[in-house]
Amino acid sequence: MQQQISVITLGVGDLAVSRRFYVTGFGWTPVFENDEIVFYQMNGFVLGTFWKPSLEKDMGRTGLVAPGAFSLAHNVPAQDDVAAVMERLVEAGGRLIRPADAPPHGGFRGYVADPDDHAWEIAWNPAWAIDDRGHVTFGL
Amino acid sequence: MQQQISVITLGVGDLAVSRRFYVTGFGWTPVFENDEIVFYQMNGFVLGTFWKPSLEKDMGRTGLVAPGAFSLAHNVPAQDDVAAVMERLVEAGGRLIRPADAPPHGGFRGYVADPDDHAWEIAWNPAWAIDDRGHVTFGL
Repeated sequence: MQQQISVITLGVGDLAVSRRFYVTGFGWTPVFENDEIVFYQMNGFVLGTFWKPSLEKDMGRTGLVAPGAFSLAHNVPAQDDVAAVMERLVEAGGRLIRPADAPPHGGFRGYVADPDDHAWEIAWNPAWAIDDRGHVTFGL
Repeated sequence: MQQQISVITLGVGDLAVSRRFYVTGFGWTPVFENDEIVFYQMNGFVLGTFWKPSLEKDMGRTGLVAPGAFSLAHNVPAQDDVAAVMERLVEAGGRLIRPADAPPHGGFRGYVADPDDHAWEIAWNPAWAIDDRGHVTFGL
């Protein structure tokens, strides 16, 4: 089977509030949106922000909770970008979880929650290559 | 800012149980592993399965819960692949959430939870292109 993930779908409570965070905070552009979902074309896959009751209906189970045991990371090209991006995200409706500092494994990172308490790590990791299409390659 | 996600990190309770699901169920190969984390190189980004207490420590907050309000999707090339992949995932330690059927928006899909109750949608969506490197493009 392909080593491939096609979509990351986040359950959201208010599509407009979530959209503001992603469009204003990250500066991303939706590729499709209706009154239930907003899709963003990402680096080799698709991000969806889906009204949580609709996600639960599609999944066939209710009781999805936050904060879930996961995080998403957006890596930036320079150490100084980390705090700057985190500040933009907070201005766009995010909430600071952990201020940026240097973890034991190297680099520099902090965490911001999106309006639905989904965690975003903003990280500078010089060992992981990012090409001009945004494709990220693991490195040591 | 690049429209880019670098890492999806899932919090897991037992690395070996999680590894069995991803390696045996999906057939994926880790690019790195130690006693705290397993990384998989994916289609333009990296998937990490991180021991949940270590994820909470890195994030600077405890109390991450499941099932979180999100899902990941793995799209397959043919409708008949959906149930076959779901069966493999259940044999590898997953749990059926929703048997495969046709959603109102088209295609065919079902949901399986990984051993940590993270939801995977297995989907056939002929409108979304998947190239030979596994890169997925939104389509209508």
